[in-house]
Amino acid sequence: MAGNSFGRIFSVTTWGESHGAALGAVVEGCPPGIALGAEDIQKDLDRRRPGRALTSPRAETDAVEILSGVFEGLTTGTPISLIIYNRDVRSSDYSQISKLFRPGHADRTYVQKYGLRDWRGGGRSSARETAARVAAGAIARKFLSALGLSVQAFTLALAGVECAVFDADEINRNPLYCPDREAAEKMVARLKEIQEKGDSAGGIVEIRATGCPPGLGEPVFDKLDARLAAAVMSVGAVKGVEIGEGFKAAFLLGSGNNDPLTPEGYQSNHAGGILGGISTGMDIIVRAAVKPIPSISLPQHTVDANNAPAIITVKGRHDVSAIPRIVPVLEAMTLLVLADFMLHPLPKRA
Amino acid sequence: MAGNSFGRIFSVTTWGESHGAALGAVVEGCPPGIALGAEDIQKDLDRRRPGRALTSPRAETDAVEILSGVFEGLTTGTPISLIIYNRDVRSSDYSQISKLFRPGHADRTYVQKYGLRDWRGGGRSSARETAARVAAGAIARKFLSALGLSVQAFTLALAGVECAVFDADEINRNPLYCPDREAAEKMVARLKEIQEKGDSAGGIVEIRATGCPPGLGEPVFDKLDARLAAAVMSVGAVKGVEIGEGFKAAFLLGSGNNDPLTPEGYQSNHAGGILGGISTGMDIIVRAAVKPIPSISLPQHTVDANNAPAIITVKGRHDVSAIPRIVPVLEAMTLLVLADFMLHPLPKRA
Amino acid sequence: MAGNSFGRIFSVTTWGESHGAALGAVVEGCPPGIALGAEDIQKDLDRRRPGRALTSPRAETDAVEILSGVFEGLTTGTPISLIIYNRDVRSSDYSQISKLFRPGHADRTYVQKYGLRDWRGGGRSSARETAARVAAGAIARKFLSALGLSVQAFTLALAGVECAVFDADEINRNPLYCPDREAAEKMVARLKEIQEKGDSAGGIVEIRATGCPPGLGEPVFDKLDARLAAAVMSVGAVKGVEIGEGFKAAFLLGSGNNDPLTPEGYQSNHAGGILGGISTGMDIIVRAAVKPIPSISLPQHTVDANNAPAIITVKGRHDVSAIPRIVPVLEAMTLLVLADFMLHPLPKRA
Amino acid sequence: MAGNSFGRIFSVTTWGESHGAALGAVVEGCPPGIALGAEDIQKDLDRRRPGRALTSPRAETDAVEILSGVFEGLTTGTPISLIIYNRDVRSSDYSQISKLFRPGHADRTYVQKYGLRDWRGGGRSSARETAARVAAGAIARKFLSALGLSVQAFTLALAGVECAVFDADEINRNPLYCPDREAAEKMVARLKEIQEKGDSAGGIVEIRATGCPPGLGEPVFDKLDARLAAAVMSVGAVKGVEIGEGFKAAFLLGSGNNDPLTPEGYQSNHAGGILGGISTGMDIIVRAAVKPIPSISLPQHTVDANNAPAIITVKGRHDVSAIPRIVPVLEAMTLLVLADFMLHPLPKRA
Repeated sequence: MAGNSFGRIFSVTTWGESHGAALGAVVEGCPPGIALGAEDIQKDLDRRRPGRALTSPRAETDAVEILSGVFEGLTTGTPISLIIYNRDVRSSDYSQISKLFRPGHADRTYVQKYGLRDWRGGGRSSARETAARVAAGAIARKFLSALGLSVQAFTLALAGVECAVFDADEINRNPLYCPDREAAEKMVARLKEIQEKGDSAGGIVEIRATGCPPGLGEPVFDKLDARLAAAVMSVGAVKGVEIGEGFKAAFLLGSGNNDPLTPEGYQSNHAGGILGGISTGMDIIVRAAVKPIPSISLPQHTVDANNAPAIITVKGRHDVSAIPRIVPVLEAMTLLVLADFMLHPLPKRA
Repeated sequence: MAGNSFGRIFSVTTWGESHGAALGAVVEGCPPGIALGAEDIQKDLDRRRPGRALTSPRAETDAVEILSGVFEGLTTGTPISLIIYNRDVRSSDYSQISKLFRPGHADRTYVQKYGLRDWRGGGRSSARETAARVAAGAIARKFLSALGLSVQAFTLALAGVECAVFDADEINRNPLYCPDREAAEKMVARLKEIQEKGDSAGGIVEIRATGCPPGLGEPVFDKLDARLAAAVMSVGAVKGVEIGEGFKAAFLLGSGNNDPLTPEGYQSNHAGGILGGISTGMDIIVRAAVKPIPSISLPQHTVDANNAPAIITVKGRHDVSAIPRIVPVLEAMTLLVLADFMLHPLPKRA
Repeated sequence: MAGNSFGRIFSVTTWGESHGAALGAVVEGCPPGIALGAEDIQKDLDRRRPGRALTSPRAETDAVEILSGVFEGLTTGTPISLIIYNRDVRSSDYSQISKLFRPGHADRTYVQKYGLRDWRGGGRSSARETAARVAAGAIARKFLSALGLSVQAFTLALAGVECAVFDADEINRNPLYCPDREAAEKMVARLKEIQEKGDSAGGIVEIRATGCPPGLGEPVFDKLDARLAAAVMSVGAVKGVEIGEGFKAAFLLGSGNNDPLTPEGYQSNHAGGILGGISTGMDIIVRAAVKPIPSISLPQHTVDANNAPAIITVKGRHDVSAIPRIVPVLEAMTLLVLADFMLHPLPKRA
Repeated sequence: MAGNSFGRIFSVTTWGESHGAALGAVVEGCPPGIALGAEDIQKDLDRRRPGRALTSPRAETDAVEILSGVFEGLTTGTPISLIIYNRDVRSSDYSQISKLFRPGHADRTYVQKYGLRDWRGGGRSSARETAARVAAGAIARKFLSALGLSVQAFTLALAGVECAVFDADEINRNPLYCPDREAAEKMVARLKEIQEKGDSAGGIVEIRATGCPPGLGEPVFDKLDARLAAAVMSVGAVKGVEIGEGFKAAFLLGSGNNDPLTPEGYQSNHAGGILGGISTGMDIIVRAAVKPIPSISLPQHTVDANNAPAIITVKGRHDVSAIPRIVPVLEAMTLLVLADFMLHPLPKRA
């Protein structure tokens, strides 16, 4: 209830601070008998690793170890403990923020909630925590892929540039996980400009799940879309989430938004694969609005712990945008939701 | 875990089908000693009642009874059971849908999940279930108002018409809970046109919570925004949810999206009252995208239970839009989230 | 979290006070497609009904209604709401206890916890609440019986008299659910003596579950025995619970307590059907220690709400022992635990 | 829901196998601002450490590290991750049990549940897992001691020898945590005899919590005694649990079992500090029946994975009794329950 666990049957508990000794995840409820090695997890972690072009120069290898729950290469049904030791920890970069609250960050709300905070790199509120989510999500991915489910996220808009083309093959070819090569090039150019000005950018990520059977989701409060919304919104920089047509549906008529049914299936997928909170069998389509990273080197008004006014220019090793590193994080959260619902009791199918 | 409960400490379990004997809610965790009568709940129920202009002519009085948890006018800390008997139940209106799946509805996904369904009026998947949410939310409202918290939702866009003006006093003056009188008039006109064509419309609702102290929300998975997103997205017609700038934040720069701090407080509220998943003390601002109601009388392609093709024209007593009746429902879900977090242990404040 | 719900997948929420309008239960997670009528539930309720020999003369028919979750005679997978209206409510019997705390009862602890209490008949702390448990348990019984599981409880000791014989057929022949006819007669005689003296008696109830497959229980905290212990101890008068040899095991040697294995199965069942918190496939054996009912008409020292000393002689319509009416309640709790675990994901079996 | 977590607000998730790389615990919900160092935890771990007289010669130092949740010596309100690396791991000792199921152990039920098992030292079902519980309990102790609550467990009976005297000062003077020095000496002598015969012994442990305020516990299912019963029964060797008079209450009359009230408080404590599932303010008294350790070197009938008959004589480094090492484990479980309830919302007190 303290908020560090997610999921009911397939669940994860994460722990760890940005500049603490380590961070990790405990994955519970993973079915036994699944082949799992650290390399399965490392693959996903490497996709969100800092140190890539346009991202923070913090040189973390993010090497993950499996400490429990796997025996002779197979999951045993007992909790799988994952640990990632923090290596490149330079708390000195953050000495300034020990005294000042960074606008747009959780510095002040953590103090208001807890009375104190681990200010080193944002402590628990750092995006670094999402490494644990990605590690857990990789286990969900392994479990789901054997059942024919896959999840892929990609960048739909970034720094004011929107995709005009969807080329699935392109997604993993460019560093932005963008399905439109030309748009990706413009995004890179635009990000560099923004970075030089000491500013930051936001964008939109779309997540698609394929191969999902009908019947997932628990009305009326744990609808599949409600859980996905919570999952996606729980990721640091996300300020909006939508399913299928999403906010566009607000401006459609019923005749344009309904998906007619034929013996061959749905004729369209405005619903984004979910009706009445239950999966339809069509692709599940989720979009997340990602705000610009609050760490900017432009001077900003703020206050210190004594509420005295101050000017802050955030230093340290920051990304210019949460995209692309948030892309595998959003995949992980979606994978965790789906793995969980796949283990809910599934009654008779018609 | 079957999805009919919401909340951890202040929680609600709802039950009931559209055309069953009754529907109800069990509210747990409400603190003892709060003055509560059926009239407190009736007030909110009356705001979502069918039978108003532009809404379904189903003539439910939605009279609520309190069956437990209140003694001598005060809550006792034990579960509060609420019941609303269904009166105006004409299942015959729905005989057609006993055989055909209505596009955009949960008819088919319920059969796929459960193997059978109560087809009378949509059964459990009917929007009628939200009466129980509103009833529970009214108890949360009573609890919160004593603490200085209030929640108000209103219509921001409907049937393609967007508000240009925000006049708080206007909201409860027109039947659409719209803060812009002229816009409201255009919405009504537009809805009538759509209704005549046998179609339906969607829109956008904004929810504002005022008086919320800083410190609510449980990082990292039960962030205040994550819980609000789940709460709002769990309401039938909602396809998108955003906090503060929401999807607009995706196109802003960090310098434009951050809220600078001064000794007097935040200079702006792009964040919508939440940073790092924790309330800041500013107004909490949530927006929901509401899809057009799927029940339309225009002919649509569908299939029957044997997957044979068919044409359906949905009859019965339907609203032309989920707005305005969804407005008090979205208030209720927000009230439930806030009441729950207000009872989480709140450690020292700085 | 407020304590009125039990179970994870197959779960029940109870509500209601002894002398309120009604009491009820909401059963969630019951699989769809199970034939269920009020008569299935009534059967079990009749077994705990007051008004039998040696029990309270309160004349409740305890007629149960199903308000939701059943359509055309089958469960639908949605919540099943059960209601039992209170009929024979004479609060005047309890006017004395509105002012004095009854020793051995929860009167004072409720005031200490909640600041006020519904004193009519003990309010929420009354054993009357267990009617809702029995009603919910009857649904679990219906679900489990189709899977070959059955649960039976019986009186092993009462008012100082212990069974010497186990005759399964005898259990439902005598009003005490006692498997030893002679012992039952002695118990009745002894209870009458105790009743005449204005005192009350306790005893021991054994619960046996048969047909349970191996594999139920979730180590390490939700072991089958841990959940059973909680279930049984949550019933009002229970002060002890043991599995298999129970407290006797504390005085055995390993060689005498272990159950040897042969190709035909276990050679004994000292373990009571549970090893490492997981069912073995043998009968599950649980015993509950039931304290004497605290309502006695002998004078007792107590205090009033102002902590002034007083003498109380509890009047009203009381049983002389929680046995036999607790017997179906303990069955119900066991049924609820087993139904829940039967719906947990059951991985591959060896 | 997979059973590795305990508690609602103050909660713990444990992970790890007997002969895996490490074992650990993640403690969530611990309030911020509590002084905590590894030494606070080590103190309790040392009390259950193997390598003491009469216990397994496995030479684990059980050195604990805090990986997160503590900053500058204070808890931060974020999850506290604890790790204990396994050092003295000799899996070869267990090669025999890779093929045979040990009677009285969870070897066979784990295979029946999960389809495979980590057989090294019992894997997850090993008592070694309780080290993680003790570590978590030590944090609960630190939190509770500041509030004036303390918990102490001691040996009431062992190997057939029962205490006749209660000398609180004696408890920590002898290796058996026994409050009766003479009894302790007899226990040691008796244990040696049993050990020489290749057998094992059980006993009874009593747990007392002092300083607990009235009002803890959540009727009707999460009563304080129900949660304590689950907590205690979830510990490996425990087969029975009782509160206050416990099983003796079954043979008392109401007049003898009720605790009369005077302005000075309760005149007795037959209830063991709990009425109606809520703490009374008196000492909370719990007793656990501990079965003899199933690992014995006497030959026993068993089967192998192919269900072929076999004779097993369990080798390896085993204790002759779960007592005394279980004593701090039972303290830990009680501490965890109390810490959790102390953080539940406590309404007005009378």
